[in-house]
Amino acid sequence: MTFDPDVVRFSLMRQSFMRTLGAEVVSVEPGRVVLALPFRDDLCQQNGFLHAGVVTSVADSACGYAALTLMPPDSDVLSVGFTVNLLAPAAGARIRATGTVVRAGRTLTVCSGEVVAVEADGTQRPVALMQATMIRRPAAPDG
Amino acid sequence: MTFDPDVVRFSLMRQSFMRTLGAEVVSVEPGRVVLALPFRDDLCQQNGFLHAGVVTSVADSACGYAALTLMPPDSDVLSVGFTVNLLAPAAGARIRATGTVVRAGRTLTVCSGEVVAVEADGTQRPVALMQATMIRRPAAPDG
Amino acid sequence: MTFDPDVVRFSLMRQSFMRTLGAEVVSVEPGRVVLALPFRDDLCQQNGFLHAGVVTSVADSACGYAALTLMPPDSDVLSVGFTVNLLAPAAGARIRATGTVVRAGRTLTVCSGEVVAVEADGTQRPVALMQATMIRRPAAPDG
Amino acid sequence: MTFDPDVVRFSLMRQSFMRTLGAEVVSVEPGRVVLALPFRDDLCQQNGFLHAGVVTSVADSACGYAALTLMPPDSDVLSVGFTVNLLAPAAGARIRATGTVVRAGRTLTVCSGEVVAVEADGTQRPVALMQATMIRRPAAPDG
Repeated sequence: MTFDPDVVRFSLMRQSFMRTLGAEVVSVEPGRVVLALPFRDDLCQQNGFLHAGVVTSVADSACGYAALTLMPPDSDVLSVGFTVNLLAPAAGARIRATGTVVRAGRTLTVCSGEVVAVEADGTQRPVALMQATMIRRPAAPDG
Repeated sequence: MTFDPDVVRFSLMRQSFMRTLGAEVVSVEPGRVVLALPFRDDLCQQNGFLHAGVVTSVADSACGYAALTLMPPDSDVLSVGFTVNLLAPAAGARIRATGTVVRAGRTLTVCSGEVVAVEADGTQRPVALMQATMIRRPAAPDG
Repeated sequence: MTFDPDVVRFSLMRQSFMRTLGAEVVSVEPGRVVLALPFRDDLCQQNGFLHAGVVTSVADSACGYAALTLMPPDSDVLSVGFTVNLLAPAAGARIRATGTVVRAGRTLTVCSGEVVAVEADGTQRPVALMQATMIRRPAAPDG
Repeated sequence: MTFDPDVVRFSLMRQSFMRTLGAEVVSVEPGRVVLALPFRDDLCQQNGFLHAGVVTSVADSACGYAALTLMPPDSDVLSVGFTVNLLAPAAGARIRATGTVVRAGRTLTVCSGEVVAVEADGTQRPVALMQATMIRRPAAPDG
């Protein structure tokens, strides 16, 4: 067992931007992290859909923490880069981003991120697909 | 002349998420839009740098509106997708994102986005490189 | 039924580069095309693995033709762009590339491409992951 | 001085696939490598343009060797991944790919690749834009 879900949750909530967006941790498993973000009017682009950058931000954090779940305990994770394809406008009650490790290497981890929009009645629709590369760093000591 | 800088500024500021982030329009020219974002503690990842999603959001808007400057007046612009490489942690007094049109097609426009971190003394450092694809849509009528 | 597998096979084999590489059509279904490429010494990078461009080429054709299977009969398909992550060196007896449609739009289709290396004994290993955007064009008349 | 242009040329020509394609080294400078590829009928997609994979292959090698020029002498370079946007069909007498280092890190190097089509009369047209991530590896001993 290489990770403690609570450590991942704690680190994730140390991302002030995830708190600013109102992101929530749905689940943390080895190699997979799911985050959710309730729709908010102040996170939109010019047509009233969630901004592509919001969708990307949540997918990026989901992928990064998915990568972290498979790293040694003293690790920190940084995004090297990612590609996002936007499949449909992000509307609905919330979005849910699932980050999944595709290949965990010693230094680099490749993840896949899927974002769906979830309506109030639970129906879902894919809104974005991400391919992300994460890098392991030694964890910075807490101050 | 195919665009009115004020229309671009107006549309950009209709992106509620850009207002939430505190993004500012630095300049609007044909094929190039520059945005700036002052550093804020509530936009960070776990190490106190601006979250990759924040950097991406500003670059995406800069690219999208750069594309819009070269489109017919009745156009709206949507991101099809983008790739971001993160070159260095985003710290400093502000970031500045420059979106530049690489190729403007009838339907699709390819843009390049460069994000630099700017220190209080004006020194700059590249933090991200984006390659983005934008699509033209007929503008939605205002309500 | 919007496609004829033989039309896809025929168009694919009109790609002279696929013949030059020695690519073979493994299967054609709606929304999914599988190609294979036997290893050859003249398709390598400096360490004797298949060149990343070879892996990409086969994945791109698999994705493009997967997109074509879901387009109207008079369609042609072109790559708008793609992202490839290389997961492991491409060695073995052959590679197999599977292109799968993630979202089929009227103009743009997003596909996912997976490339595995297959050993002589049948064991497989992922070597690349692609995310591709394809565009529909009216088919050019045959000359 | 951290590189010997002849070493780069030699390593590049050890890529059997570059020989198969007929690629030529145009220039090697610190942080920049230019390759050319004469048009050939057996490297095409279904409409008689160079296959996107061919364009990508040459851009990838140009970027990889651009990265290598800034690495210590005992280095080898591998592609981690790349994104390609195809800007126009690749026709003409030849294509020329320029790989340029955007940021050289100890482990990872980010490069930009530009591919132009060159007509017999010398006129040029951009055909592709690449953003690539390369990783340094200790050079394998020669056998």
